[in-house]
Amino acid sequence: MLTLHDNITSGNGYKCRLLLTLLKKPFKRIEYDIDKGETRTPEYLAKINPNGRIPVLQLEDGTCLPESDAIMWYLAEGTEFLPADRLARAQALSWMFFEQYSHEPNIATLRYWITHKVEMTPERRAALPGKRVQGQAALKVMENHLAKHGWFVGGGYSIADIALYAYTHVAEQGGFELKPYPALNAWLKRVASRPGHIPITKG
Amino acid sequence: MLTLHDNITSGNGYKCRLLLTLLKKPFKRIEYDIDKGETRTPEYLAKINPNGRIPVLQLEDGTCLPESDAIMWYLAEGTEFLPADRLARAQALSWMFFEQYSHEPNIATLRYWITHKVEMTPERRAALPGKRVQGQAALKVMENHLAKHGWFVGGGYSIADIALYAYTHVAEQGGFELKPYPALNAWLKRVASRPGHIPITKG
Repeated sequence: MLTLHDNITSGNGYKCRLLLTLLKKPFKRIEYDIDKGETRTPEYLAKINPNGRIPVLQLEDGTCLPESDAIMWYLAEGTEFLPADRLARAQALSWMFFEQYSHEPNIATLRYWITHKVEMTPERRAALPGKRVQGQAALKVMENHLAKHGWFVGGGYSIADIALYAYTHVAEQGGFELKPYPALNAWLKRVASRPGHIPITKG
Repeated sequence: MLTLHDNITSGNGYKCRLLLTLLKKPFKRIEYDIDKGETRTPEYLAKINPNGRIPVLQLEDGTCLPESDAIMWYLAEGTEFLPADRLARAQALSWMFFEQYSHEPNIATLRYWITHKVEMTPERRAALPGKRVQGQAALKVMENHLAKHGWFVGGGYSIADIALYAYTHVAEQGGFELKPYPALNAWLKRVASRPGHIPITKG
């Protein structure tokens, strides 16, 4: 059986949990307390992920695959959640890299700081206003796309939507107001109403 | 002909220039002065990339594809630079997401601040020590992998190597010492000695 090394509060972990559930793939979930450094132990670094992060998908032969979007790609190849067309596949990746570079480090990070009640060090205090502005810019890029398209890529629900849904639907927990983005809100509802959808809190 | 919207100092742009050259694909390059905000003009945002960044690959039909690693994936599908095996493809993506999340925002950003002589605002000053530590951690993850493997994925040179080479080989411009990483240095030499290799300065 597949094993997901995970943390239940993580949107990156949720991407994998959601896709595994939609694909009806049974999996075992191992929970790590990231606040206690459980993904930075010598054993975790040696055996699961040298980069010290969740999620990691462990295959039946023991191979460990880190990075949420790479895990989704692996699971989605050959399924309805990844377009077959070459350009559409690259466009899906384009949105997934956008998510990891321009969206997650801002929106997910502020959510993490607030919901996990981390110490607001001088470094974090200095970074906060920039992350707020850049997170809003990322939401605006999404809104402009969704004002013209029902989904991010190829006319249907795909792993690009899952990648962006994961932290967008909980962005308000990071202090990001979602009301100014009507097309984005409509898309959030479309994603949540997909058959088999599960919430981020479902382990 | 393909058009690459680019900046000659960018490692992300270099990934695309290098792969296009290795694939012997002719392309037209349009240079943008990122320090003058030429990728943030209303026209650029409307027509090239709503996220205001280079590189962007513009196809012959006008379609614009942003994100360096998505561009490489598009170009490499079906070639020797992307493994055919499903797991190896996901592992290539895993390294590419590692690069964009854990490597580039630290190593490339410090190089940019130094070589482009940006103003060291309080936000940047506060972020610098953390980026230094995290950049070194990323190099260490690479070193540990390369101590056991000749290439990042699948036994051969691939777009995962190109993604990581782009900013690693110029990391010293960002104040990162590379001497402590012998396996990484050997890999840098292997990449640079590939037939058809071009330097980052080649437009």
